[in-house]
Amino acid sequence: MNSSVQGVFAAVLTPLDGDLAPDRAAIARHCRWLRDNGCDGLSVLGTTGEANSFSVDERVRLLEDLIEDGIPGNVLMPGTGCCALTDTVRLTRKAVELGAAGVLMLPPFYYKNVSDDGLFASYAEVIERVGDPRLRIYLYHFPQMSGVFLGHDLIERLLKRYPDTVAGMKDSSGDVHNMIRNAHAFPGFGVLSGSDEFLLPLLKEGGVGCITAVSNVAAFLGAEVFAAWRQGDVETAERVQARLTAVRNAISALPLTAALKEVMARHTGDDEWFNIRPPLTRLSATRAADLFITLESLDFNPPPAP
Amino acid sequence: MNSSVQGVFAAVLTPLDGDLAPDRAAIARHCRWLRDNGCDGLSVLGTTGEANSFSVDERVRLLEDLIEDGIPGNVLMPGTGCCALTDTVRLTRKAVELGAAGVLMLPPFYYKNVSDDGLFASYAEVIERVGDPRLRIYLYHFPQMSGVFLGHDLIERLLKRYPDTVAGMKDSSGDVHNMIRNAHAFPGFGVLSGSDEFLLPLLKEGGVGCITAVSNVAAFLGAEVFAAWRQGDVETAERVQARLTAVRNAISALPLTAALKEVMARHTGDDEWFNIRPPLTRLSATRAADLFITLESLDFNPPPAP
Repeated sequence: MNSSVQGVFAAVLTPLDGDLAPDRAAIARHCRWLRDNGCDGLSVLGTTGEANSFSVDERVRLLEDLIEDGIPGNVLMPGTGCCALTDTVRLTRKAVELGAAGVLMLPPFYYKNVSDDGLFASYAEVIERVGDPRLRIYLYHFPQMSGVFLGHDLIERLLKRYPDTVAGMKDSSGDVHNMIRNAHAFPGFGVLSGSDEFLLPLLKEGGVGCITAVSNVAAFLGAEVFAAWRQGDVETAERVQARLTAVRNAISALPLTAALKEVMARHTGDDEWFNIRPPLTRLSATRAADLFITLESLDFNPPPAP
Repeated sequence: MNSSVQGVFAAVLTPLDGDLAPDRAAIARHCRWLRDNGCDGLSVLGTTGEANSFSVDERVRLLEDLIEDGIPGNVLMPGTGCCALTDTVRLTRKAVELGAAGVLMLPPFYYKNVSDDGLFASYAEVIERVGDPRLRIYLYHFPQMSGVFLGHDLIERLLKRYPDTVAGMKDSSGDVHNMIRNAHAFPGFGVLSGSDEFLLPLLKEGGVGCITAVSNVAAFLGAEVFAAWRQGDVETAERVQARLTAVRNAISALPLTAALKEVMARHTGDDEWFNIRPPLTRLSATRAADLFITLESLDFNPPPAP
C-alpha cells in the first residue's frame, strides 16, 4: 500500500488580509476548525486555496507558519506543483521537511500538448532532485484547469519507476469512471475524488477518500459518509452522501473559491473572508443571495464557527 | 502613440547548461548575435524562452546578468506575466528598473473561465503596485497556451484607465483578423504579431511589427520585410515575406522551442543547445532529420554563428 492517506480532506481556502496577503492567524484558525469538524487532512495551497496566485516565497511562509501555529505536519497535503521545475522542487522539499503526509502535485501547466515523455521527465526530475525517501506524491489530475491530462500509461510508468514515492492521485476531472479505472488498475495507489459527489461511489470501488473545496464548510457530512462506509452501514452512507451531493451541487454551480469565501464570511461574520486575489473575484450580491436561498432550502449550516 | 516599440523582436531561446539552468554566457552571446542579425528587440523570457519553467529568482537573475553582460535594457521586452500577482509585480518592477523598453505580460493563466473584471483587476493591481511611470505593458495574447482570452472590451477598459501604461499587444492567437481589429480600433496601441506569416499583413493594417520564435534563426528575413515595407517597396516586402512564411511553416509544424534549439545546435555545433527543461522535450531524431531536409529544400541557413 503506497498510500497512507485516507478519508476526507479539505482543499483549504486561504483567508487574505486587506493587502491580499495570506492571513496567518486566520488560516491557522480555519485549519483547526476544519480538523475539529470532520477533516482527516488538510490540502492547503491547492486550486481552492488560490495557491497559484501566490509566489513560492508566500507559499513557503504559509506552510512554515501553519506548523509554527500548531498544525501537525502529518495532516497536511499541500499543493506543490508549479510550472517551474525549480519552484516545484523547492516547495516539495519544504513540505517533506515539515513532515507533510504527502504533496499534491500538478504537472507543469503552462505548456499544452506536451508528451507523456515530458510529463514523466517533469515528475522524475522533481523526485530525483528532492531525493528524499519520505516524499509521497499524489498526482493532481485536473485537466479542465491545468490543460494537461495525466493518463493511465503515465501513471503506470511513474509507478513502475518510483513505486514508493508515487502514492496516489487526486482526480478533479469529474469523471468517476477515470477514478475507478485507476483505483482498479493500480492496487495500493490511493485515488481520492476531487468532487464530493463521488466520495462514496469511489470508496465502493477501492478509492481512499476525497479532497474537496466544499469540505471547507461541509466536511462533517463527508466524514459521516466515510465513517458509515467503514462500519459497513451502506444505508447511512448513501443517505448522507445524497445530502452532501445536494450541498455540493448548490455551491459548485458558482465559482468555487468565491462561493465558499462568501459562505465563510456569512458564517463567521468576518468580512475579511470576502478578500480574494485576482483573477478570481468576489461573487456578485445577486449570486450570493441566490446561493444562500438554495443552502437554506437544503437546511444546510456549517458547524458552529470558532 | 503609446508604443515606442516597433520592428522585429525575437522571442529569445534560453540556452541551458547540463543542470538545465540558464547558461549566462550563452544567452548573452545569442542575444548579441540576434541584434547583429536583424533583431530590433529581444523578448527574453517568453513562451519560446521557457520562462514559465524557471523560478522568478532564476528569471530575475537572467535579466540582471544580461544587463551586466552588456545587453542594453532598452532593447529588452521580457515576459513578466506569471500566475501569481506578487511574482508578476516583482518581475515587472525588475524589468522597469533595468530600463526595459516594455514588458510582455501574460494574464494569470492557471484559473480558467475568469471574468473580464478579474482580468482587469489583475492588470490594474500590477500597474498600481509597480507604480512606475516608466512602465509600458504589452499584453500577451496567447489563448491556446494560456487558456485565457484578452478581448476587445478588456483592452478598451485598460486603455481608458491606463492610457500611458498599456502600450500594445503581442498577439499569438494566429488570428490575423483579431490583430487587425485591435490595430484599427486602438490607434497608438502597438500590435505585434506572434506569428511570422502575419508580419507584413499586419504592418499593412497599422501593426508595428512582430515578436516571434522563428526570429531566433530567421530575423534577417523579418528585418528585410520590415525595412522594405518602411521604404515603400511592397514588392520586395512581399517576396521576402513569402520566404519567411515558408521557413516559419517548416519549423512551426514541430514543437517550436525544441525545433529551434535543434537548429541552433546544428548551426553552432554546440550540443548544449539540445538541453531543454521538462515538460518540453528534445525532438526525436526522425523529426529533426525531417526538419533539416525541409529547411535544406528551402535553401535556408541562419546567418553565420558567432
